Amino acid sequence: MDVDVKKQLLERASIAEEIIYRFLPEASGMQKTIFDAMNYSVHAGGKRLRPVLMNETFKLFKGEGQVIEYFMAAIEMIHTYSLVHDDLPAMDNDLLRRGKPTTHAAYGEAMGVLAGDALLNYAFETALNAFDLDDANPYDVKTALQILAKKAGVYGMIGGQVVDVESEKNQLDITEEKIDFIYELKTGALIEASMEIGAVLAGASEPQIKIVENVASRIGMAFQIQDDILDIEGDEALLGKPIGSDERNAKATYVTFAGIEKSKEEVKRLTDEAIEMLNELPYENAFLKELLAYLVYRDN
Amino acid sequence: MDVDVKKQLLERASIAEEIIYRFLPEASGMQKTIFDAMNYSVHAGGKRLRPVLMNETFKLFKGEGQVIEYFMAAIEMIHTYSLVHDDLPAMDNDLLRRGKPTTHAAYGEAMGVLAGDALLNYAFETALNAFDLDDANPYDVKTALQILAKKAGVYGMIGGQVVDVESEKNQLDITEEKIDFIYELKTGALIEASMEIGAVLAGASEPQIKIVENVASRIGMAFQIQDDILDIEGDEALLGKPIGSDERNAKATYVTFAGIEKSKEEVKRLTDEAIEMLNELPYENAFLKELLAYLVYRDN
Repeated sequence: MDVDVKKQLLERASIAEEIIYRFLPEASGMQKTIFDAMNYSVHAGGKRLRPVLMNETFKLFKGEGQVIEYFMAAIEMIHTYSLVHDDLPAMDNDLLRRGKPTTHAAYGEAMGVLAGDALLNYAFETALNAFDLDDANPYDVKTALQILAKKAGVYGMIGGQVVDVESEKNQLDITEEKIDFIYELKTGALIEASMEIGAVLAGASEPQIKIVENVASRIGMAFQIQDDILDIEGDEALLGKPIGSDERNAKATYVTFAGIEKSKEEVKRLTDEAIEMLNELPYENAFLKELLAYLVYRDN
Repeated sequence: MDVDVKKQLLERASIAEEIIYRFLPEASGMQKTIFDAMNYSVHAGGKRLRPVLMNETFKLFKGEGQVIEYFMAAIEMIHTYSLVHDDLPAMDNDLLRRGKPTTHAAYGEAMGVLAGDALLNYAFETALNAFDLDDANPYDVKTALQILAKKAGVYGMIGGQVVDVESEKNQLDITEEKIDFIYELKTGALIEASMEIGAVLAGASEPQIKIVENVASRIGMAFQIQDDILDIEGDEALLGKPIGSDERNAKATYVTFAGIEKSKEEVKRLTDEAIEMLNELPYENAFLKELLAYLVYRDN
């Protein structure tokens, strides 16, 4: 089963990539460097999980039309800008990501700041254009935009990032409550946004959207606890990176507080709950269900 | 006359300020630092020109209701984020702005990056909430949002900033064409957005909005050429800063290419054209007209 999900995920990620690339600005004009830096950042790869989750949730609710593509591109631009700014010298100071020079390493620090700004702004520019589609419901587009903005901002991803940055400076102040907050917001919020927007744009009802949000928040949390577990007992060959980095960096994680066995139980509990909730819906997307389980129980 | 315009501008700027402050997020919760940094950045002062211009254009077209307030707050947040990121060590590396520590100087560089990101995102979050007002026309809100996003992004402010950053590194490559591009986009685009959005939200017709855009682009350009002129022959006491900074930094400006007399003529030509265009409209806002003339012929 796993092999098949992995293969399907790769196929769908490459479909998502083609869509995202189509929405990037053409690299011409006096400000060509910023277009190059944006393109470079987005082309740098990644699992394209957020747009795939969005599209699969859209399909779950029998969504139709191009409207989803605008938001698939937008959410990946937002995810990418957050990585570009995370990698800056003032933040994580990373020169490599997935084996390639980070944006600021390739284009200079000033352009790293501006490329991030540009991608965030362009995400909204892109999603706002969905209003002009003949077959899009303007009310749903509005709702999707509001979800996108909220989950990407201070009550979402940025809020989580702020607490993470502060916690890294003051490891002694870290609490279980702060870990939960960071996990829910830093990564969880964009996963929630992806699935909720998919549901909204497919015309799901409000109670259905609420269910999707609850599914997504559990998957987001389980996903990250699994990350911590893999960093302790993962297979380096499969992961493609050395394990034990949290321990070396004395970084407190969920596992630090709960212990490894309780963490594994929590991953299972969250995932079971999420799948159960998904089963309550009068729709079926077998791949989405397998994908959610795979994301959590992955080995890389 | 000038004294009176100045006084009125101060009054209206303080009304705009009250509006903007109301839309800032409350500083509580785990991510309190980012709220503090956002508030600090926006409270740091400034002429509040963009929201005032927006509101006066809205009043010119007999606009009514709260909708304008959401966009006044949004445009000032975008202007503020651009200053916060401009001041970063990777960009202009400024520790003081208007006599106060810049955001990164007060909160650290990582928080400077994040506060800028947060303000840009929150600008869209705020403006998107205008959709939920009972008396706002959703089509106009959509159009206003599209203008905001475009003029703030790679085809607007960020585009101008990119060329400016590159030109500062390579002063020999600077051309008159590049100066025009930077002036039109870096500052001009947000001035255009301010006035256009005011017109759109008041329900102005498309030809009227086009006129407003043309007025704003001339005022934006004249405003910046006047800036260059003041840096050469302004009164330091009135300006509150030393003149001659462009010469000391060997920075090419409009005056470098056109000479000071032709620059003054161009300021007059652009302003006269703008006022003439404004006079074509079947509406009257005496203060707006005086304000535009004052902005260009200002002494500080």
